[in-house]
Amino acid sequence: MSYKTEQLHEEKVFKDPVHRYIHVKDRVIWDLIGAKEFQRLRRIKQLGTTHLTFHGAEHSRFNHSLGVYEIVRRIIQNFEGRPNWNPAERILCLCAALLHDLGHGPFSHSFEKVFRLDHEDFTRKIILGKTEVNAILKRVEPDFPQQVADVINKTYEDKLVVSLISSQIDADRMDYLQRDAYFTGVSYGHFDMERILRVMRPMEDQVVIKETGMHAVEDYIMSRYQMYWQVYFHPVTRSAEVILSKILHRAKHLYEEGYQFALEPTHFLSFFSGEVELEEYIELDESIALYYFHMWQRENDNILKDLCDRFMNRRLFKYIEFNPNLQMNEWMELFSLFKEVEIDPDYYLVVDSSSDLPYDFYRPGEEEERLPIHLLLPKNNELKELSRQSDIVESISGKKRTDHKLYFPLDLLDKISDDHQGKTRIFEILFG
Amino acid sequence: MSYKTEQLHEEKVFKDPVHRYIHVKDRVIWDLIGAKEFQRLRRIKQLGTTHLTFHGAEHSRFNHSLGVYEIVRRIIQNFEGRPNWNPAERILCLCAALLHDLGHGPFSHSFEKVFRLDHEDFTRKIILGKTEVNAILKRVEPDFPQQVADVINKTYEDKLVVSLISSQIDADRMDYLQRDAYFTGVSYGHFDMERILRVMRPMEDQVVIKETGMHAVEDYIMSRYQMYWQVYFHPVTRSAEVILSKILHRAKHLYEEGYQFALEPTHFLSFFSGEVELEEYIELDESIALYYFHMWQRENDNILKDLCDRFMNRRLFKYIEFNPNLQMNEWMELFSLFKEVEIDPDYYLVVDSSSDLPYDFYRPGEEEERLPIHLLLPKNNELKELSRQSDIVESISGKKRTDHKLYFPLDLLDKISDDHQGKTRIFEILFG
Amino acid sequence: MSYKTEQLHEEKVFKDPVHRYIHVKDRVIWDLIGAKEFQRLRRIKQLGTTHLTFHGAEHSRFNHSLGVYEIVRRIIQNFEGRPNWNPAERILCLCAALLHDLGHGPFSHSFEKVFRLDHEDFTRKIILGKTEVNAILKRVEPDFPQQVADVINKTYEDKLVVSLISSQIDADRMDYLQRDAYFTGVSYGHFDMERILRVMRPMEDQVVIKETGMHAVEDYIMSRYQMYWQVYFHPVTRSAEVILSKILHRAKHLYEEGYQFALEPTHFLSFFSGEVELEEYIELDESIALYYFHMWQRENDNILKDLCDRFMNRRLFKYIEFNPNLQMNEWMELFSLFKEVEIDPDYYLVVDSSSDLPYDFYRPGEEEERLPIHLLLPKNNELKELSRQSDIVESISGKKRTDHKLYFPLDLLDKISDDHQGKTRIFEILFG
Amino acid sequence: MSYKTEQLHEEKVFKDPVHRYIHVKDRVIWDLIGAKEFQRLRRIKQLGTTHLTFHGAEHSRFNHSLGVYEIVRRIIQNFEGRPNWNPAERILCLCAALLHDLGHGPFSHSFEKVFRLDHEDFTRKIILGKTEVNAILKRVEPDFPQQVADVINKTYEDKLVVSLISSQIDADRMDYLQRDAYFTGVSYGHFDMERILRVMRPMEDQVVIKETGMHAVEDYIMSRYQMYWQVYFHPVTRSAEVILSKILHRAKHLYEEGYQFALEPTHFLSFFSGEVELEEYIELDESIALYYFHMWQRENDNILKDLCDRFMNRRLFKYIEFNPNLQMNEWMELFSLFKEVEIDPDYYLVVDSSSDLPYDFYRPGEEEERLPIHLLLPKNNELKELSRQSDIVESISGKKRTDHKLYFPLDLLDKISDDHQGKTRIFEILFG
Repeated sequence: MSYKTEQLHEEKVFKDPVHRYIHVKDRVIWDLIGAKEFQRLRRIKQLGTTHLTFHGAEHSRFNHSLGVYEIVRRIIQNFEGRPNWNPAERILCLCAALLHDLGHGPFSHSFEKVFRLDHEDFTRKIILGKTEVNAILKRVEPDFPQQVADVINKTYEDKLVVSLISSQIDADRMDYLQRDAYFTGVSYGHFDMERILRVMRPMEDQVVIKETGMHAVEDYIMSRYQMYWQVYFHPVTRSAEVILSKILHRAKHLYEEGYQFALEPTHFLSFFSGEVELEEYIELDESIALYYFHMWQRENDNILKDLCDRFMNRRLFKYIEFNPNLQMNEWMELFSLFKEVEIDPDYYLVVDSSSDLPYDFYRPGEEEERLPIHLLLPKNNELKELSRQSDIVESISGKKRTDHKLYFPLDLLDKISDDHQGKTRIFEILFG
Repeated sequence: MSYKTEQLHEEKVFKDPVHRYIHVKDRVIWDLIGAKEFQRLRRIKQLGTTHLTFHGAEHSRFNHSLGVYEIVRRIIQNFEGRPNWNPAERILCLCAALLHDLGHGPFSHSFEKVFRLDHEDFTRKIILGKTEVNAILKRVEPDFPQQVADVINKTYEDKLVVSLISSQIDADRMDYLQRDAYFTGVSYGHFDMERILRVMRPMEDQVVIKETGMHAVEDYIMSRYQMYWQVYFHPVTRSAEVILSKILHRAKHLYEEGYQFALEPTHFLSFFSGEVELEEYIELDESIALYYFHMWQRENDNILKDLCDRFMNRRLFKYIEFNPNLQMNEWMELFSLFKEVEIDPDYYLVVDSSSDLPYDFYRPGEEEERLPIHLLLPKNNELKELSRQSDIVESISGKKRTDHKLYFPLDLLDKISDDHQGKTRIFEILFG
Repeated sequence: MSYKTEQLHEEKVFKDPVHRYIHVKDRVIWDLIGAKEFQRLRRIKQLGTTHLTFHGAEHSRFNHSLGVYEIVRRIIQNFEGRPNWNPAERILCLCAALLHDLGHGPFSHSFEKVFRLDHEDFTRKIILGKTEVNAILKRVEPDFPQQVADVINKTYEDKLVVSLISSQIDADRMDYLQRDAYFTGVSYGHFDMERILRVMRPMEDQVVIKETGMHAVEDYIMSRYQMYWQVYFHPVTRSAEVILSKILHRAKHLYEEGYQFALEPTHFLSFFSGEVELEEYIELDESIALYYFHMWQRENDNILKDLCDRFMNRRLFKYIEFNPNLQMNEWMELFSLFKEVEIDPDYYLVVDSSSDLPYDFYRPGEEEERLPIHLLLPKNNELKELSRQSDIVESISGKKRTDHKLYFPLDLLDKISDDHQGKTRIFEILFG
Repeated sequence: MSYKTEQLHEEKVFKDPVHRYIHVKDRVIWDLIGAKEFQRLRRIKQLGTTHLTFHGAEHSRFNHSLGVYEIVRRIIQNFEGRPNWNPAERILCLCAALLHDLGHGPFSHSFEKVFRLDHEDFTRKIILGKTEVNAILKRVEPDFPQQVADVINKTYEDKLVVSLISSQIDADRMDYLQRDAYFTGVSYGHFDMERILRVMRPMEDQVVIKETGMHAVEDYIMSRYQMYWQVYFHPVTRSAEVILSKILHRAKHLYEEGYQFALEPTHFLSFFSGEVELEEYIELDESIALYYFHMWQRENDNILKDLCDRFMNRRLFKYIEFNPNLQMNEWMELFSLFKEVEIDPDYYLVVDSSSDLPYDFYRPGEEEERLPIHLLLPKNNELKELSRQSDIVESISGKKRTDHKLYFPLDLLDKISDDHQGKTRIFEILFG
């Protein structure tokens, strides 16, 4: 028996609060889970700073990765014996599902933005580089690592395989919506996945949904919409992200200026310079990052110190609705006033905007193109794009919504002497 | 209005996956939650290494502390206006509930055992010492911190108040059973808390349960039993604890021998010396500890390095049933054989024993005495100890069960040359 | 103490699968639940024939009525002490909630349509007539029955009270969505009622929702939409309703024609004549109706007999999409063909149309006007109609959707001799 | 393809609130579900009068029968390909599971006791008699009905097949515990069935459980214990059963005495005479029975009339703890006193006793013998009876508990003139 098809002597199960049980029978999968690069995902939270808003959301990417694997496993189980399904792709799908988030670092959102990184690059690098994961994949076939990377990269030629991991209704999204709902405890995020799995059908270049399952899919789309606005874009979470980004900016700035750190930012140096090697990247998990933020609470630089204290002790910025496009003058005046009262606006006056497209049909050429959802009609096996069949989806389709907030440290503003003219004006602008 | 009775302008709610919502209306409680010593509990997992067995169990002590507070809040709400209940104790109960676990450090179980610490000492020290928590409590009344500490310490004179936090059916246990079941995903740990809360009645020196609620309490006792054996004493979790303890032992040993660390164990020095000051203790949260274990994977000492690699990458010891009392000879032979094959048995051959008393009525003078559960019979308001009324509880009452396991690194044993006589004998003893 | 405010010695609780517990402390409520007209609701299914599609949906209107009562009780508990809330209305609200569906008969939908009845008339008659319920209500105050009837009738002058029972987001709808979802087992129908209850505020003439609860309300609106299309308008359920209506039509027709029943339709006589007295109405619960349908399986009339057999043994009509407005010719041709093959189209060829307005803002003068949902904005306590604030609701607001189906007995059609020309043509029209 | 192995063109699914979905692919099963004798189970409540205590428990035996089928289907799915499992028995197991309760009548408990019937006899008769069910089974193979009857009767020679339907941990019990818990809403009745199914293994003459699943089984045993005492033996339910039995006794008595009924008990005649033919038995479902009880509220006989009013309008008897073995004198005195005050003790003074054996290992020769649960130990595939391995089960094993209650109409007693000496004495004995 080849390593590719080797089965464990006895099936292993993981107890999972979302899918009840996660089943592993393939030796390859079992070995990948044990690889140190995969175990590292235990030290990276799935939702970054969201636990500062929803205290239950402390689950890791390790959790989520197992969940995506399990969903793909169940989809494939249903596909067995159906037309268009090539059983030889099974283990490839499972590996790609399990490893699709391997390149995430701590607080990916902020780190990627500040240091211009892309976690997908690092997923690829871990799969193709000199790692335990790579060694395991190579035992399957010499070019198997490349195939896995291609699937995750959406360049693999069998688009059906790609669509399991990346489409408007892929295993990734189905897992995170349910998982994040479970751990935050919100009542959104529930939909009938069992039904969706049963109505999925493999087609030549994509997974489609039998029309009888349309309402379950509508429910999924609405869950997604609610989770985005209730959880992922929650303004308190964004406040923590804002502070985190400013910590990274400040540390980089200080380093570039030659500031003498009490705790040298050893693990950050390659990030500052913009040339992050794979080993350095893997090294920096969340406990390492927190170690630095923790220690930097005692640096001499007042800004770095203050921001780290805020982040570690959840002393977040307050916020108001604020649209910088429409309120340019206020924005500029606030900027000057902050300088005047000696609160550096580069770190303490921040606009953050979030936007979401609840459902989009295919628009070729777009950067982040996701395959749309197609329904399979019983007559002639015709396909129809979801929003053409569902009133509900049609009504929200392509409606981009953006939410702008202005973040600032109310506690610092309160401390400005009341004599100071600027103080009154600032409060006037902020609170009307 | 005094600080003691000050109410927030608007009630704050936390979304909680276990109790749905946690309600805060008292200013004191709100301020305590914001104190840095309380926020620190976010960086300490509720179940230590259990997430290496049940991947969902990544929740922190912050979570649990809020939960215990909420349960006590609901109990008190039901007590209002009843005989024996003194409303003046309300805020004291809430504070004690919220803060009862404040002194926990990272992986408390192992740290306490290796360094002979007691987290309850530190809870007291944080409450009474120079901390943000202490400052807040003092604003209530100068001796309020002492009162809170007394309640947690079970020395407070109003035993009714004490029993809310520490008895066989206190808010602490009711929260953790449900919470740990929720996050691990196991089906044990459920019982009808709403019913139990409704049948709780305040008596002079304890909380008692109306007899009509007996079956709900039986269910709670059985949940507890199942959670102990299915989750808390899971042998895989204990394997991780064994490795962790050995890391701490090794690091201490190396330090005492004058070993030159690549990364100096600065944060551990006071632990090694046995004189841990409050500030040092608070400093050491889980991300700090993990930072060291992470870095020590690259130390020169083979044992420290190997143990840290095992802990960080979940390469745990295997185990067999093994009762050292009955198998003294095998134990001693194994010990010698391990030495012979150059695997240091002090670090690589470990017996671990767990035991539980599922329910105990009061036995005065015992170390870990917990108040028993009393039922309130309708006739004459007579009290009766639970196990005298419930067949089920009676049948398991006082039955101590102990489980012994022997832990060892199977991977290292496998690597011993097959020529080596000791190898065969070791496998013979271990696997028969 | 007056009967109006009399409290039970000890609170009574009912275990409820949806709201966990239903709490009764008022003597009036307790007595009403024990009244025979209320107990009668145990013998009337909440969802008529839906259990023939979703086998779990066997719950009665008794269930639902308790649920509506409990929700109103919780709403009022939150209202206590707030401006605009008059505590004197409490017991009136509770009674109206409990009794609002009292006048439902068996399979109300079909009975009302065939016999031109209105269950709301009978609710009023039971409350005001010579019944146990009336006697209990009169003990509160002589005109209390009238007040209760007015609230249910939406003519009570305090519109705030009315809106608790009848508005776009009243206790009635919140209970049935959740309850029907629970018993059918579908995954729709869930929303965060606890949150909605907490953000409800009494205003002069209606209950409004604090803006922070908007997303929970959106979720509720979407649940409603899904429940309508997935459960309430399910085509299989409608097939059973079609058959039931035809049984009633046939029995009436036979009676009017002087047909000699083997089992005289004693309980139906007043329904046939159109003059239903209160006592006769109350008499006819679901077990009585089923007794007749059961016995009529052995009547001599082939149509009545066949339809009753179909209903009792779930031998339902099949259906196709069919819009009679657009397919008039096919409709007329089918009608003739059915006659030709001797299948009476009056009973065996039926078009059924369902339509729903998922959310409607107030449109005065409409027949079935329901109060719209208003959000309470924090600024100046301004009110805003929901669909103006919510993109999602706006997008589905006022969109009436109609679904047309044609029902017919496929088994009878199959039995027509293949030689018969009509048969081929019928199948051609039906299945293309 | 033979009828035995014929598959539906497309799998049918039923939405089930307990098992989420029930899957049917076999033509035989689909046809059996459509048979009128099976559809009749929709008109028989699973828990008889329990809905008068737990209002949610209105579910029918139809529900439960589908559930048992589904569990057996899942068990067999896991068995496929394992040693000891004969795939040819598959359809036999499924049919026996689906049909095992076919012979239940309305309120079986009372009817069987009063008329000395056994629903198992009727299950057999329906399967072997001239019924739609029989015709379907015969199409499989001529002696297939007999095989199905034998499995249900526990006389089938392959004991492995029998044990799926009748043992201490069979599909029947696993379904009803969960289903009854779901519909009543109690928090007992939950256990990890998914895990139990996964650790079930077929052996030559029984299903056994892998030792690793022992704790899940313990949980199941405890659920059973709690459901018995909290739900099945609830004293209020037993009050309704007592009244029901007395209605049946009275009607039989009146009939035998030649009483002239206003509504002749046509459907009951064969029950009174003790010679119930199959067709008569099938005829009497719950709506028929309720029709009579409803109508008999207007009989001339005061006892029949009163008892029917009590049953229909839930005016139940009150109860006290009363052990007739220990309280013989009181019992006899009460009996005389009731006669004296003209309340017929034969109908209005009733002792009811319930008892349960929570878990019993095999005791050959006993009337209601159930196969015990055996654990499969990993060493040598040895079997061990559960109570020898589980402390918890051992502690409750074989402990029979009996609960005695005395039922009486408190309302009638209240109405006795206070002058009457007997009244005082009655109250003295009853309430001390």
